[in-house]
Amino acid sequence: MKNILIVGLGAVGTVFAVFLKEAGHNVYGLVRNKEKYNCSIFQVDGIWGHHSATLDLVTENPEDLKNVDFDIIIVSVKSFDTEQAIKNIKDLVKDKTFVILTQNGYGNYETAVKYIPKEKVLLGRVIFGSKVDKNCHATVTVNADDVRIGQPENLTEESKVIELACTIKHTGIPASYSKEVYKVLWDKILYNCALNPLGALLKRRYGELAENPYTKEIMNEIIKEIFEVCQLNNIKLNFKSAEEYIEFFYSKLIPPTKDHYPSMYYDLNSGNRTEIDALNGAIVKLGEKVGYTPKVNKTIYNLIKSLEK
Amino acid sequence: MKNILIVGLGAVGTVFAVFLKEAGHNVYGLVRNKEKYNCSIFQVDGIWGHHSATLDLVTENPEDLKNVDFDIIIVSVKSFDTEQAIKNIKDLVKDKTFVILTQNGYGNYETAVKYIPKEKVLLGRVIFGSKVDKNCHATVTVNADDVRIGQPENLTEESKVIELACTIKHTGIPASYSKEVYKVLWDKILYNCALNPLGALLKRRYGELAENPYTKEIMNEIIKEIFEVCQLNNIKLNFKSAEEYIEFFYSKLIPPTKDHYPSMYYDLNSGNRTEIDALNGAIVKLGEKVGYTPKVNKTIYNLIKSLEK
Repeated sequence: MKNILIVGLGAVGTVFAVFLKEAGHNVYGLVRNKEKYNCSIFQVDGIWGHHSATLDLVTENPEDLKNVDFDIIIVSVKSFDTEQAIKNIKDLVKDKTFVILTQNGYGNYETAVKYIPKEKVLLGRVIFGSKVDKNCHATVTVNADDVRIGQPENLTEESKVIELACTIKHTGIPASYSKEVYKVLWDKILYNCALNPLGALLKRRYGELAENPYTKEIMNEIIKEIFEVCQLNNIKLNFKSAEEYIEFFYSKLIPPTKDHYPSMYYDLNSGNRTEIDALNGAIVKLGEKVGYTPKVNKTIYNLIKSLEK
Repeated sequence: MKNILIVGLGAVGTVFAVFLKEAGHNVYGLVRNKEKYNCSIFQVDGIWGHHSATLDLVTENPEDLKNVDFDIIIVSVKSFDTEQAIKNIKDLVKDKTFVILTQNGYGNYETAVKYIPKEKVLLGRVIFGSKVDKNCHATVTVNADDVRIGQPENLTEESKVIELACTIKHTGIPASYSKEVYKVLWDKILYNCALNPLGALLKRRYGELAENPYTKEIMNEIIKEIFEVCQLNNIKLNFKSAEEYIEFFYSKLIPPTKDHYPSMYYDLNSGNRTEIDALNGAIVKLGEKVGYTPKVNKTIYNLIKSLEK
């Protein structure tokens, strides 16, 4: 039985919390606004069946948690809240604690290691789709692959990361260890940068974006620019060239998700801040850092930012 | 009393037709779909007061017009119909006939001179705002400057162009001769390329686009790319640098039109084809012709094209 803290009880955090608690662990929640969570039971429905659990404590004050020795802290806030979340939990990280970052986009690991020793910071690439219908109730709509867990620079003893992945997997959430989690995360960044802002801006499903020759050209340009940015920053990707990724993107990645709208679409619609800063915005920063402006990514970034409240 | 043909009786064509007929000229209309114009009276309202006229003939068949000796043919179809319109009228151009092109964007003059001798083809830069409420009824909402009339390469005897400008001016439509009509047209192309697609895409007024830092950055990039494209194509502009135009754009051009939506916004909303091909699309072609891809213009072009039916 482990002590586990979930930071952020949104669409992803709620799933982890409920499954881990059902599996018998002690599960705590740290949230920004306690009032939103005045429910005694958290529930998950969808493709993995019905699940529910009562957490040990939900609080907005890290002080309430300082006497717990956490084995795992899962950070599942939106990427624009990563820095604040890390500041809130850094004093809760003890000798045995590992922090797993599950957020979208680039820059979460880079932010976390400013406050927490690198070997304690793991990435968990989440690629199941989940949404919060109302507070304390999430629905899992699709699962593309295991949650892939690893230390980006392989600085953590492998057996310990494997054990963590097993803990997650035993709850019923498909999960596995990855020795190349950084590359795996970049696969998802590519996918999200190409599809999310266009789907949100044009109110189109992934399949529609892939069928239209004009949006297809924009997505291809976004992908090519990201490959350029990664090469200039010496970031290694799973694909040899943009063309190789583009082929995989249209033939393998789009078809199973063709009817989906991106979460960014729902964010814009409901007046929420989007994750564009950790996606195309991060690409622009990484490019400009080395003197290259990825103009298509920057234009798309500016368009989404202009629509945020 | 002159014989005048108006090709295209939309928002702009209707204004010319009614004012010229009221002034005593013989005015004919050539339209694509005669059925849409089953009215005996054409009317104009708005900032220039109420005007109405019955035209001498409205037809969709150029054959019906072959016995008329036209002094002036005003082409006021949408820019994407220019080529077809020119083909329809080329046999109606006699010794004394001048053709005035009033369309938006780049490429109308270049298309017309493939079929009609250059010295007979004039540009009329229209910058009054007008909309068709219902068929045969237009409303003039704003006027930024005279209709500026000239031969782009100054190949026509100056006195003849001045006489034409006077004919228009005497009807009550502010008009004047311009020795630099090509530069004047490019001022409008710059303005339209920066504002129209963004206003249409984001459903924002000109003033809102100029206030938001993100759309402002996109507009500045669009303008800079156009200056680059013009320089590479040896096209002379009225402004020394993009920065000089940008300063003029925000301080002088935007304020009087800040509450306007672009016509492209109404076109997209009503499922009509837009004029993007003659605006940012033409910029992309002009750039790529000389090996330079204006990426921001191309991205914006692709976004609008993806939304056209």
